[in-house]
Amino acid sequence: VSDFQTNLAWDTLFEPLAGGPKHRRLAEQLREAVRTRRIPPGAALPPSRLLAEELGCSRWVVTEAYGQLVAEGYLEARAGSATRVREIAASQDRVSVLPDRAPRAAGMTRPRHELLPGTPDLGAFPRRAWADAVSRALRTMADAEFSARPRAGHPRLRGVLAEYLRRVRGARVGEDDVVVCRGVTDGIRVVCEALRDSGLRRIGVEEPGWAQVWQAATRAGLECVPIAVDEQGLRVEELFHHQDLRAVVVAPAHQFPTGAVLDPRRRAALLRWAEAVDGVILEDDYDSEFRYDREPVGVLQGVAPDRVVLHGSVSKTLAPALGLGWLAVPDAWRVPVLSRLAPADAPGVPDQVALAGFIESGSYDRELRRARRRYRARRAELIAVLERRVPGVRVSGAEAGLHLVAGFGGEGDPAWSVRVEREAAALGLRVSPLDFHRGSGPSGERALVLGYGDLPEHAVEELVVLLKAAVDAAARGG
Amino acid sequence: VSDFQTNLAWDTLFEPLAGGPKHRRLAEQLREAVRTRRIPPGAALPPSRLLAEELGCSRWVVTEAYGQLVAEGYLEARAGSATRVREIAASQDRVSVLPDRAPRAAGMTRPRHELLPGTPDLGAFPRRAWADAVSRALRTMADAEFSARPRAGHPRLRGVLAEYLRRVRGARVGEDDVVVCRGVTDGIRVVCEALRDSGLRRIGVEEPGWAQVWQAATRAGLECVPIAVDEQGLRVEELFHHQDLRAVVVAPAHQFPTGAVLDPRRRAALLRWAEAVDGVILEDDYDSEFRYDREPVGVLQGVAPDRVVLHGSVSKTLAPALGLGWLAVPDAWRVPVLSRLAPADAPGVPDQVALAGFIESGSYDRELRRARRRYRARRAELIAVLERRVPGVRVSGAEAGLHLVAGFGGEGDPAWSVRVEREAAALGLRVSPLDFHRGSGPSGERALVLGYGDLPEHAVEELVVLLKAAVDAAARGG
Repeated sequence: VSDFQTNLAWDTLFEPLAGGPKHRRLAEQLREAVRTRRIPPGAALPPSRLLAEELGCSRWVVTEAYGQLVAEGYLEARAGSATRVREIAASQDRVSVLPDRAPRAAGMTRPRHELLPGTPDLGAFPRRAWADAVSRALRTMADAEFSARPRAGHPRLRGVLAEYLRRVRGARVGEDDVVVCRGVTDGIRVVCEALRDSGLRRIGVEEPGWAQVWQAATRAGLECVPIAVDEQGLRVEELFHHQDLRAVVVAPAHQFPTGAVLDPRRRAALLRWAEAVDGVILEDDYDSEFRYDREPVGVLQGVAPDRVVLHGSVSKTLAPALGLGWLAVPDAWRVPVLSRLAPADAPGVPDQVALAGFIESGSYDRELRRARRRYRARRAELIAVLERRVPGVRVSGAEAGLHLVAGFGGEGDPAWSVRVEREAAALGLRVSPLDFHRGSGPSGERALVLGYGDLPEHAVEELVVLLKAAVDAAARGG
Repeated sequence: VSDFQTNLAWDTLFEPLAGGPKHRRLAEQLREAVRTRRIPPGAALPPSRLLAEELGCSRWVVTEAYGQLVAEGYLEARAGSATRVREIAASQDRVSVLPDRAPRAAGMTRPRHELLPGTPDLGAFPRRAWADAVSRALRTMADAEFSARPRAGHPRLRGVLAEYLRRVRGARVGEDDVVVCRGVTDGIRVVCEALRDSGLRRIGVEEPGWAQVWQAATRAGLECVPIAVDEQGLRVEELFHHQDLRAVVVAPAHQFPTGAVLDPRRRAALLRWAEAVDGVILEDDYDSEFRYDREPVGVLQGVAPDRVVLHGSVSKTLAPALGLGWLAVPDAWRVPVLSRLAPADAPGVPDQVALAGFIESGSYDRELRRARRRYRARRAELIAVLERRVPGVRVSGAEAGLHLVAGFGGEGDPAWSVRVEREAAALGLRVSPLDFHRGSGPSGERALVLGYGDLPEHAVEELVVLLKAAVDAAARGG
């Protein structure tokens, strides 16, 4: 065997592997040897009889291993010639870089604290209750339900969500109107694809707004037309200025990031606009379960179910990690929307059945009540400390949701946001400047969007002190 | 009220519903009556005052219910005229326009038995073990892991899958190469979108092949170029005939539906083609864990990791309902592929962590071993009964996977497939003619793709008898 010109000690081929059939162990060792070029491209392997002798195994073991690697393309066997390593097989092993790890690799220290919006109280996720709901789903599902996921979602969850949306959000929906998806952004993506299919090219989006909405619309091939938002919500009259606009994404109950609630007259005007242009409204109902000063405003969809697609999810009420959301789709859009859904798009069936049971059993309502109390207290604490520690701070946004806007006054300065983010990061704090939620460039307003969903009360004082230091440093830099 | 020409006893409208506000109960009853045509299209409804008297409720209840159904489009109200049932509202029950229910609504009786390919043994899903894995994941996840799902998947699952794919499939992957997705079709969709972004317009697909692959590629905006498959798998030389073709989807380990294993020389030729055109191969490794006569052929990706995207999932090994799959992506394609993924695309994190634990603990391997024994037995039983009961039947496809092809000989006849499907349906049996898996029209070959994954052994005899009856009837019809 020694006259086969390689660096490999053939008789070591069996050693590193503890167990398993010999032919498999041999194939694995040979494969690895080819990959690492211990057996170089073009090299001839020992005849099976010789190698079998060397290894003290049957010849069958060797021919089986050779055959396996020939089938996989590592080796080639030619009649009347030795089995050889294929040229192509030894192309290099790779070292790789991950895009989603790049920021960390770029030398930024991981911040100790976050005040970013969009995250609920992750420590409060009802692990036990949810595990029970999943176990119950897995116990009670029929065998057939373990087959392919229904495209529009599990019928039971669709029915339960319809009832929930009627009861809690004043929606006008039946089971057939509800489509289960993976979250608000996912649902908006699907509807935007359907709009694109129907010939639409542009869609109105709130400015400032939630960047993932723009990204979803853009990924679907639509151009985003920014529509300004003020204290009364979307400036609906601007929609009429864009003659070819027939679709808009809006969060009437609690706009992100401004926290505005859409004024009732504007609600009516928005519906008139949709009728006038024969258009469609994508209603982003992302966190409206949380209102602290009054009953949540019911959904626009309940007023005009034929003009409004309603989007919601459990990302703010339970956890983003679950990836469970829904749409309520007008009749006219049901087929276009469903045609844009692949069965693969639906969440796992056990999770869908678990959510249905979780809502039906009252656990979901109970979690919402608890969360509402907690977030209300956190919001109050954050505002109190801000007003005590940061003179002149102006808090805006409805008493709702998981975030507020803190304005710090001062001259308009487009670079302020970059400075304050950097100064905060240097203090170990991640913050989200309001201007970063604008698609059409900074307005220069000195304001931060502060999320308090995942903010423990005991940490508020310390974070606000750091925040003030960052704001002061950014002001000096300006 | 009796002069309103319907079959409806108006005074029964409140009865079937136990509770809830009267106007809602009335609206529900009326909606149902319109849907089921108990109140026919165009029919006038009683004036609200009259119906209120009849029902012994306030007039407001009736106008509210009418208003609701007008808003929903079931009724139409015209000034100075009676409220009527809209023509369109009663045209169909809305359930029936749902794409995934269409086949059932189209008048077919639900078959008692299925011999369709693609479904594993649903009754064998390890409900308890999976529930334990999910519970353990929910107990052990860090709070922060309940936040947004990482775009490329949970790092722990990516690492575990990389190890699994190296060990079991001979893949050449590290954690960073693996992207978690929701299944093979989902992964192919994502890669096709990335290919489209890069300027590609066409992609080669196996003919016959898996329709969901064509659909995913088409949905991503690519044109599918059918490449013929014979007993040795994809006819690789055909790729060279299409000068602008630089991507192809292929299932080398076990082609669907033919069951062919790609010949080693063709494997090498396929890699040469990819090198020559600077192209990419999408390797559909959908069921290759199941091989009954020898070790599964290792993946092509292991030979040319820079040219091959590897696609796999648990849909055949555990259940399609989970929606858990993966891709192994070459370095050059990682950024384009990740840019096509939204965080919303990733499966729920608890499920991802559960799968990681399930594999690490050895449960997955154990399930695979059990399943392999079961499917091997089912396959053998199906073949034995076919050969005994259906003289002249020709079974083809490698001893692998969850399906085989049964050929019945006879003259080429493009209409045979339609006939045999209909005859089988009349006998309560759903079958999948081979020709239905061709994108470019029927070849006329008289063959069925028979899935035995979810086929209980005790039912084989009966199903084959029914099958033979359908095949005989279809032959007579030709």
